[in-house]
Amino acid sequence: MPETPLIEDRCRPLRGPQHRLDATQILALLKQLDGWEIDQERLHREFRFADYRSTMLFVNAVAWLAERENHHPDLEVGYSRVKVAYSTHDVGGLSHNDFICAAKIGALTSI
Amino acid sequence: MPETPLIEDRCRPLRGPQHRLDATQILALLKQLDGWEIDQERLHREFRFADYRSTMLFVNAVAWLAERENHHPDLEVGYSRVKVAYSTHDVGGLSHNDFICAAKIGALTSI
Repeated sequence: MPETPLIEDRCRPLRGPQHRLDATQILALLKQLDGWEIDQERLHREFRFADYRSTMLFVNAVAWLAERENHHPDLEVGYSRVKVAYSTHDVGGLSHNDFICAAKIGALTSI
Repeated sequence: MPETPLIEDRCRPLRGPQHRLDATQILALLKQLDGWEIDQERLHREFRFADYRSTMLFVNAVAWLAERENHHPDLEVGYSRVKVAYSTHDVGGLSHNDFICAAKIGALTSI
């Protein structure tokens, strides 16, 4: 049975180290994303905008998605840039949920 | 002539190293703030909230103030915390504007 594409998938409650992805799984999922990088078991990407209002509107779109999926990234917000970083505290590393949300955030900027 | 209290003051365009505050000025202004700290010429404070929606509503209040004063902090946003950090790129360090905005952000949480 083929896996659900990340963009069509939904986050599920994941708790415990059995849901922590290993390096092989992480690299396979990373190939499905555009512009995201891994650093110290955090999946991150920087987005740039023309002005502060555009930046903050993006932050709010990310927050809406975070609430809907009940999976919340760390954000670093400057005047014209937002760094979005995902990891899953409840699994002690990266989970499938991080990649689902990253795919959806990426899609926000292309829809 | 007494200085305008930070909370009643407004940011003005400041450019050039002559507007960079020295250590004595910084310490005098810091005494007028509650909960803010200085680290590597950045004025910062962490705010904590009960949930993500409260966190994001605060982020938006900060953004509104940032636009009004045309002085924009760096933000680190987690599920229940926001770190607000000010410095003034155009002066190469801390300026009076950083302290004005810090005072106003602090007031947001007490009004």
